[in-house]
Amino acid sequence: MRTLFSADDHIVEPADVWSKRVPRKFLEDAPHVVDDGEMEFWVVEGTKMPTIGLNAVAGKSEEEWSFDPVRFSDMIPGCYDPKARAEDLRAEGIMASLNFPTLPRFGGALFPELKDRQLADVCVQAWNDFMFDEWCAVAPEMFVPMAIVQLWDADLAAKEIERNLGRGLRAISIPEETSLLGLPSYYNSFWDPVWDICQQSGTAVCMHIGSSGWRPYTPPEANPSLNVALGFVPTITHALGMMYSPVPRKFPDIKIVYSEGGINWVPGALERADRMYKRHKYWSGTDDVLPSDVCRKNMWFCLIEEPYGLRVRHDIGIDRILWECDYPHSSCVWPNTQKIVDELFADVPADEAEMITVRNAERLFNWSCQPAPSAAS
Amino acid sequence: MRTLFSADDHIVEPADVWSKRVPRKFLEDAPHVVDDGEMEFWVVEGTKMPTIGLNAVAGKSEEEWSFDPVRFSDMIPGCYDPKARAEDLRAEGIMASLNFPTLPRFGGALFPELKDRQLADVCVQAWNDFMFDEWCAVAPEMFVPMAIVQLWDADLAAKEIERNLGRGLRAISIPEETSLLGLPSYYNSFWDPVWDICQQSGTAVCMHIGSSGWRPYTPPEANPSLNVALGFVPTITHALGMMYSPVPRKFPDIKIVYSEGGINWVPGALERADRMYKRHKYWSGTDDVLPSDVCRKNMWFCLIEEPYGLRVRHDIGIDRILWECDYPHSSCVWPNTQKIVDELFADVPADEAEMITVRNAERLFNWSCQPAPSAAS
Repeated sequence: MRTLFSADDHIVEPADVWSKRVPRKFLEDAPHVVDDGEMEFWVVEGTKMPTIGLNAVAGKSEEEWSFDPVRFSDMIPGCYDPKARAEDLRAEGIMASLNFPTLPRFGGALFPELKDRQLADVCVQAWNDFMFDEWCAVAPEMFVPMAIVQLWDADLAAKEIERNLGRGLRAISIPEETSLLGLPSYYNSFWDPVWDICQQSGTAVCMHIGSSGWRPYTPPEANPSLNVALGFVPTITHALGMMYSPVPRKFPDIKIVYSEGGINWVPGALERADRMYKRHKYWSGTDDVLPSDVCRKNMWFCLIEEPYGLRVRHDIGIDRILWECDYPHSSCVWPNTQKIVDELFADVPADEAEMITVRNAERLFNWSCQPAPSAAS
Repeated sequence: MRTLFSADDHIVEPADVWSKRVPRKFLEDAPHVVDDGEMEFWVVEGTKMPTIGLNAVAGKSEEEWSFDPVRFSDMIPGCYDPKARAEDLRAEGIMASLNFPTLPRFGGALFPELKDRQLADVCVQAWNDFMFDEWCAVAPEMFVPMAIVQLWDADLAAKEIERNLGRGLRAISIPEETSLLGLPSYYNSFWDPVWDICQQSGTAVCMHIGSSGWRPYTPPEANPSLNVALGFVPTITHALGMMYSPVPRKFPDIKIVYSEGGINWVPGALERADRMYKRHKYWSGTDDVLPSDVCRKNMWFCLIEEPYGLRVRHDIGIDRILWECDYPHSSCVWPNTQKIVDELFADVPADEAEMITVRNAERLFNWSCQPAPSAAS
C-alpha cells in the first residue's frame, strides 16, 4: 500500500465548534446548528446557512449526490468526526491530511462579513482552536494543522498565525482573491504582515478553488454542473495574477498552494503568460521575473485524477505537484484511493510518483508521514 | 518558403467603409471618421470611438506599442489597404487570410447596440459589402470572405448569410458569448436559424477572443498587460460552455472556430470537463455526449506561437489546429513569419506541420491556397 499525503481534504464542522468556545455573550450570534423539524442548518448572526449535499458525499454513490441541504445524520461520520476520519484515511494509506473549513468557507471569508468584528475575531480563533484541540489532537501524526485568519486586519492575522505557530501550525488558508470580498487585493501592501510571517516561518499559504467570490460568466440556461467543470478558471486567473504581482517579488520565499485547482492547465498558462509578459514589457512595465520563474519557485498545484496532467508533469515541475484526496467532496477518490492512485501512476516512475504523492508535501509542510499499514494488515 | 493559411487577421476599416455605402439619411449616424486636430476617431450615432494603438502595431517594434489612440497615418498601409496587405502577406508566404472587423468589434457586437435598428442593419450589410467588393476583390485568391450578422435578429442574420453565400462566403464571425450583450445566449433556440444555415452550407462559425463582453476578474492595481495574458480565459469558459450546450447536439455538423484563443489549454480543459461531465451526470442531467466528443467533431483552435501547445498536438487533435498570423495586432508574427514558423515547427513532421499551417484550414473553409512564391523569387 502506498503512503499518501493528501494536501486537500475538508472538515464538515461539528455543531458545537463555536458554541462551546465563544464567550456567553456571543452565543446567539456565533455559528450554531438549529433543527426546524424539516432540516438542520447553521445560523450565524441570524442568517441561515445550510450544509450543501455536494460537500459531504464521501461514501455515497454518484446517483445520490445533490446540491440539496443535508443533516449530519445523512453523512458518514468521517465528514465531521476526526476519529472516524483518521480511520477512514489510514485504511486507505492516507497518512497525512490537510483540512479546509466548510462553514467559514475554504478561505475563511465568512467571518469578515459579520457585522460584529469582535465576534468575527473570536470565531476565527475558535475554528483554529478546534483544529488543534479537537481535530489534530485525535491523530496528531496525521492531521496537518492549518489556520484561518482575520482577513480584515493583517496585523491581527499575523498575530493569529504567530499564536498558532507556537503549537505547530504548518499552513494557512486564505481566498484566491480578496478584493471582491471588500478587502484590499493581494497587490496591496495591506497583506505584508501576513506574507512576512509566513515567509519567515515557512508557513504555506493555501488558496482553495472556489474561494475568490466570482465565477466565470455562464448564461443562466447552462447545465448547473458546467460551473463545476469551470471551477479551475478563477484559479488560472488568480495564479497568473499572483505571478504578475508584487507578492513574490517582495517575498521571494513565499510558498503558495493552489488547492484543488488541478495541474493540467499549468504548462499552457505559463507558456501564454511568459510570452505576453515579455511581449508587452515596454508599454506595461513588466520586469524580468517571468511568470514561470515565480511559478517554479513559489507555487504548488494539486491533482486528484489527471492522467494528462501527469503526463506533462515535467512541464509543470515534478516538485510543484501535490496529490490530494478531497475527502469528503464530490471529487474525492476515497473509498477507492489505492486503486485509483495505482492506475493514475501506472506509467510514472516510482520515485516521481512518490514525490507527488507524499515527498513534495512532506517537504513543503515540514511534515514526516508515518508509513502506510501494509496491504496485508 | 512554406505556404501558409492565416485563420485570423484583422482589418482596420478605411474611413469610408460606411459613409460611401449607407443611404444619405444615415450619413450622420453611420460610422465615419472625424479629425479634431488632436486625433482621428470614429463617430457612431454621436459617440466617439478611437482606434486603439495595440490593434495596429504591425511593422512597429515592441517599444513603440501602446493602448493610445492612433491615426491612419501612424499605421502601415497594410492595416487598412487590401492591396498593401496582400503584398505584405504574399511576401511572407501567407497565401490565404481570414479577416475580422475592428470598429464593429471582432464578433460584430457594436451594431446591436445602436439605437436605430434600420441603421444597424444597413451597417452590417455595408461591412459585408466592403469585405467582398473592396477587400476580397483585390486578391480573391487570398482573402477568405467572412461576414458579420444582425445579431439582434437571427432570421435576418440567416438571410444575410444566404445573401453572402451567393458570392462565396466561407465563415461568419459572432461573439464567444451573446447574453452579456443583451441578446439570447447560445443555449437559446433563438439562434437556430443561424446554426441551421451554417450547418447546411458548411459555413464556419468563428468566435474571436475578446468578443464575449466580460473579462476574468482582476484587481484594479494589476499590471494592465495581465488582461492580455488572461485573454484566453473567456475562451476556455465559452468553449466548454458550447461543449455542454444544445448547439452541437441539435446541429451535429456545426463547425466552430475559436480564433486567437490558443491551443495549449485544450487537453487540460477537456480532461477536466469530461471527468466532471461524467461524475455529475446524475444530479445535473448531462447526457452521454462528452465535451471531448463535441470538441473533436465540431471545434477548431488557433495557434500563433505555442511550442508546448504543438508538443501536445495529438491530445488536441492534429486536425483541430489552425495556424494564424494575427496581422496587424500585437501577437502578430509578421514581418518574420517564415522564420518564426520554421522555428515553431522544427520538431514537427512535415505532413503534420502542413496540416496545421494550411491543409486543415483549406478543408474547413473549403479553400484552395495558391503555393507560396519560392524563397528565391
